Amino acid sequence: MESCASLIAEQPHRLPPLQAATSRRRTLAVGLIGPGRVGSVLLAQLRAAQERLLRDAGLELKLCGVAASRRMWLDCDDPELNAQHDAQTWRPTDLEQFAAYVRGDGQRHAMLIDCSANDAVASNYPYWLAAGVHVVTPNKLANSGPLSRWQAILAASQHGARFRYEATVCAGLPVVQTLRDLLDTGDQLLSVEGMFSGTLAWLCCHYDGKRPFSALVREAHALGYTEPDPREDLSGIDVARKLVILAREAGWPMSLHDVAVESLVPPTLVHVPLDEFMARLDELDAPMAARLAEAQAERGVLRHVASLDHNGRAQVRLQVLQASHPFAHTRLTDNIVQFRTQRYRDNPLLVQGPGAGPEVTAAGVFADLLRIAESLEARA
Amino acid sequence: MESCASLIAEQPHRLPPLQAATSRRRTLAVGLIGPGRVGSVLLAQLRAAQERLLRDAGLELKLCGVAASRRMWLDCDDPELNAQHDAQTWRPTDLEQFAAYVRGDGQRHAMLIDCSANDAVASNYPYWLAAGVHVVTPNKLANSGPLSRWQAILAASQHGARFRYEATVCAGLPVVQTLRDLLDTGDQLLSVEGMFSGTLAWLCCHYDGKRPFSALVREAHALGYTEPDPREDLSGIDVARKLVILAREAGWPMSLHDVAVESLVPPTLVHVPLDEFMARLDELDAPMAARLAEAQAERGVLRHVASLDHNGRAQVRLQVLQASHPFAHTRLTDNIVQFRTQRYRDNPLLVQGPGAGPEVTAAGVFADLLRIAESLEARA
Repeated sequence: MESCASLIAEQPHRLPPLQAATSRRRTLAVGLIGPGRVGSVLLAQLRAAQERLLRDAGLELKLCGVAASRRMWLDCDDPELNAQHDAQTWRPTDLEQFAAYVRGDGQRHAMLIDCSANDAVASNYPYWLAAGVHVVTPNKLANSGPLSRWQAILAASQHGARFRYEATVCAGLPVVQTLRDLLDTGDQLLSVEGMFSGTLAWLCCHYDGKRPFSALVREAHALGYTEPDPREDLSGIDVARKLVILAREAGWPMSLHDVAVESLVPPTLVHVPLDEFMARLDELDAPMAARLAEAQAERGVLRHVASLDHNGRAQVRLQVLQASHPFAHTRLTDNIVQFRTQRYRDNPLLVQGPGAGPEVTAAGVFADLLRIAESLEARA
Repeated sequence: MESCASLIAEQPHRLPPLQAATSRRRTLAVGLIGPGRVGSVLLAQLRAAQERLLRDAGLELKLCGVAASRRMWLDCDDPELNAQHDAQTWRPTDLEQFAAYVRGDGQRHAMLIDCSANDAVASNYPYWLAAGVHVVTPNKLANSGPLSRWQAILAASQHGARFRYEATVCAGLPVVQTLRDLLDTGDQLLSVEGMFSGTLAWLCCHYDGKRPFSALVREAHALGYTEPDPREDLSGIDVARKLVILAREAGWPMSLHDVAVESLVPPTLVHVPLDEFMARLDELDAPMAARLAEAQAERGVLRHVASLDHNGRAQVRLQVLQASHPFAHTRLTDNIVQFRTQRYRDNPLLVQGPGAGPEVTAAGVFADLLRIAESLEARA
């Protein structure tokens, strides 16, 4: 081994500044799949930021195509992205063609953003990633669907292209990245507790027994707080998906069927048509009134809570919480999540805020895009 | 312009996977300045993670030196980092020599982590960054100190080397990055409200009039919750520094003197020696009792709140909050911050948890290191 003194003698004592500024300029070609509510807001956010990102971060965002379920357009159809697209510039959707076009010659950085809610689209992720195309999505299907597909996605993303999905849990709130940072810095997850449904939070916050539960569901439905079919919220499945995503992030290979989900939909109403369900909504009232009475007897409040502990037990259910519990004080439709870890054992780390809506969901996707764009910087 | 059809015809329809996995392996040379409480825990965290990071992320962390205020060692003194260092391997601290050694030949990635609380160290950041050395720090001095120095640091970090400081505000809680993501995705900050001192939160939570305020300060001091001189907490200056850091992050060129800080230390006790201050602590009681009576008359609670609004008004002061305010329900020593933005206008985004302590502070620094390490990946 060389002597330390000689190694140091070789170093200049005053560090010379870099001769030329490292150019941080890079181009990222982006294709969007699913120009629905979130997708179209995202496009607007990206377009509004293009000039700023180029100026401040040297990032040229090249929006080069949009694929809807039946039709797609590519930027060569319409190079002026801000222009209204003439219907004639659309062609029938072919996702392979779309991905190949966005990827280009394989020399530029390329990203596909999946804002569809389509399971078949998610099945393409492993191929896209293996071909060097980054993938970002707000959709829960890949991360909470079949374990083998998710593992194929992870394996494919080991080869350089990156897969990010912050907006799958609580939209734009920093949840997945926060858990990732805890784990990557060597912390150990002990438990996760959360309220991942703004709709169920709103219903629970308002349900004090003065009005029947069904009346609140009707009001939430009329206000657009629920899905068109409120059973999608009331079943708890969407919440369970988010729990599966966080469990897998923590390295626990869990699937949807591993989560004990308490549905608020009585078994007799699960398979009836929507209008019949809405007509028979008052069948929810007696069981909910019993749960509320129980909570009130314990001087607590009723909340819809998802939880995951370090024994791998995952539950989604109504729980009675005491007034001292932080979940007893959330604002109306807020989502909330708290991580208890080895380092945050006594007082957990807590993130709270609106966890749904096109603007904040799109912003979560956008933040993922920027995180990947950062990693595209090569050192000169 | 080429026809779209010919461009597309050139693309293979089935994307071929990359021929060889892009190698993500890269080496990051790290030098630590300030092996105190946070710095030594950080070293332990980094050492514990070295093997995992190399295996899972292809990141070789090369810990190549530690500089304390008077002495430093370089890895060539002692290549076995986990070994106890013989006192003879230390040499007098020379930061220029230290930085030059960590930087090496300028070809490898290099990072200096400043865990000192030393203002002179912060003055080196612009030179280190300009020389291509990344800088990460939990210290508030650079970001809340002289505006011109901070601007020099920002300017220097435009050239490739990166400067990160998540742990300057609320330790390991995701605060700075969360604000950054909001802004970078095009959101507009309307206001920040926070409780940035676990000590003051503990004092406010416990102060209900049954015991005089001075007794609580003595207890907190005995428990080690306060700085050795409790005036450092009670003055509110440390909280004001964190507010300045967030304001600058939002693009508002604010300095410490722009913050209206309400100190809980009576003017007559500001300059007396520590033991005299501790002996005269009961002089805090009458003014605090008056504030508490005021809060109780309004049926609220007393909290120490930092706030920043979009008119650039920055305040740190005791405030009376109603029970419905989320800050009224924090857990003992928790920090809390809420961002109100254009997108989070009605319900703000809120992060809460322990905001001090060596373990979580070091983890915040570690997460910054990983964020930079991610960006070192070159695309093949």
